[in-house]
Amino acid sequence: MESGRVLAFSGGIGGAKLALGLQRVLESGMLLVAANTGDDFEHLGLSISPDIDTLLYTLAGLDNPEVGWGRRDETWNFMAALETLEGETWFRLGDRDLALHVERTRRLRKGESLSEITADVARALRVPSKVVPMSDDSVRTRVETDEGWLDFQEYFVHRQCRPVISAIVFEGAATARANPDVIAALADPHLRAVIVCPSNPFISIEPILAVSGMREALEGCAAPVVAVSPIIGGASIKGPTSKMMHELGIECSAAAVAMRYGSLLDAFVIDEIDANICADLQLPLVVAKGLMTTIADRECLAMAALEAADRVAATR
Amino acid sequence: MESGRVLAFSGGIGGAKLALGLQRVLESGMLLVAANTGDDFEHLGLSISPDIDTLLYTLAGLDNPEVGWGRRDETWNFMAALETLEGETWFRLGDRDLALHVERTRRLRKGESLSEITADVARALRVPSKVVPMSDDSVRTRVETDEGWLDFQEYFVHRQCRPVISAIVFEGAATARANPDVIAALADPHLRAVIVCPSNPFISIEPILAVSGMREALEGCAAPVVAVSPIIGGASIKGPTSKMMHELGIECSAAAVAMRYGSLLDAFVIDEIDANICADLQLPLVVAKGLMTTIADRECLAMAALEAADRVAATR
Repeated sequence: MESGRVLAFSGGIGGAKLALGLQRVLESGMLLVAANTGDDFEHLGLSISPDIDTLLYTLAGLDNPEVGWGRRDETWNFMAALETLEGETWFRLGDRDLALHVERTRRLRKGESLSEITADVARALRVPSKVVPMSDDSVRTRVETDEGWLDFQEYFVHRQCRPVISAIVFEGAATARANPDVIAALADPHLRAVIVCPSNPFISIEPILAVSGMREALEGCAAPVVAVSPIIGGASIKGPTSKMMHELGIECSAAAVAMRYGSLLDAFVIDEIDANICADLQLPLVVAKGLMTTIADRECLAMAALEAADRVAATR
Repeated sequence: MESGRVLAFSGGIGGAKLALGLQRVLESGMLLVAANTGDDFEHLGLSISPDIDTLLYTLAGLDNPEVGWGRRDETWNFMAALETLEGETWFRLGDRDLALHVERTRRLRKGESLSEITADVARALRVPSKVVPMSDDSVRTRVETDEGWLDFQEYFVHRQCRPVISAIVFEGAATARANPDVIAALADPHLRAVIVCPSNPFISIEPILAVSGMREALEGCAAPVVAVSPIIGGASIKGPTSKMMHELGIECSAAAVAMRYGSLLDAFVIDEIDANICADLQLPLVVAKGLMTTIADRECLAMAALEAADRVAATR
């Protein structure tokens, strides 16, 4: 088995599950996760980074296993009091979770970077992997819908994905500077693999790829790039991926995701149920159980992705 | 009994207790409380107004009766999580209390005034009295100590009043514009009384008096001005008043407080134990139980102060 570092591209819930699997099967410190920050937003005057937080909590073992976001053993007294004060309560912030938002907001206002703050939080929470934002510059995902342009969280959480989308943009991505640790990892000849986590391609992975220089760095990377399908049997595991694909006129299938990533990929990990639909892809396929219910499932899927990468590397 | 409006000058805990007594013995809507904002500060990026909050919670019946500040039935999970993140935890912010700070901070940043925000919070919490900041402009109490100049909360909470103080200043007070409702009340010929609550004279009442135009408006006010002594038997009921008076070279007695207020007062409410020490004051004295343990105590002391004012008014 190879022992070089692994870079994962990840959004929130589904991506974080695989990231935990990767963390558990790799030696400590060998995983670098580039997190989507296109979903970040300012709410109640606080700077919130949903995907970074889900990754940090999941990798620290503090995640809420029922909903996939926020912290376990959470309480909601802040929200209850805010409701009494007639504040906005559509984005749920738990009492413990709030500490991270308040502390991050305070430090960002002081001029510290999201990377620095994330590194300190990861250290404080004893996360053995490195989690970095895709960029320290602001990138904001916005969606065009039948009700006009909406900020991502407005569409995703407040409107619960009800508006029909026709386009997605990543404002600021073209000029945002890619995280230097990610660029350095992609240029590292000893990088073992790039794993594209089973996150929503359109709203979690493509914002990362849209950051200035990121796609080129990934294309020039010597390590194998392996994606894990977020679609199992024609449906997304969680979240609105299938609804979005339908509205964007893209077939909701594992094969369509692979085609969307196109020549970036060196291998693709799919569930057994999708073997037929992916048969025509000009890409090495690895079949593994796609649904990550248990911790063992996450480890198995992580192993499958790493082994796929190692097999690609062995042929080079 | 008179039925005009009553204006109270108040700091936090002790003042809020009497304000509640006043609220309970007056008809709904007849109490206006001018709150000290010299203790206000920015902490964790949040705008905190300790005296306003203690007043609002107390007048809404949401106060924590054990400590006198913050909310009853409070939880502390935000603080616990912040400690894990190595954030600053010397100023305790409860989960429910935090909602008020986050909401106020958000609205202040939008350009709304502290008066507007306070009025909305009071309405949401169903406070039947009006609570206003002494000014919407920033006034910051700072103390000169044997360890240098300190911001008030740094001295008061973080250092727990351990440094020895030699001077107190109210930065910004000279140019801060007094709350117009307070100025209007003081100019109102139908104002029944001004009650100076049993708050610390130096750090709770004098900042209010230091606001531009406030002392002059109080001096020109037609209504009787009645102070309730915060000192009982040579000791402050709560807080550092006696230590501060000692360090400032002022005798810690009810009489010294009355002399400090000087010609502003038309009557002074003291505990029976202080009748002798106050005997030489050239001021009508009213003796009442000074210690407010029960709700009935607060009502009795409030009645004593109002009756003192009414007696003064009857002689005019």
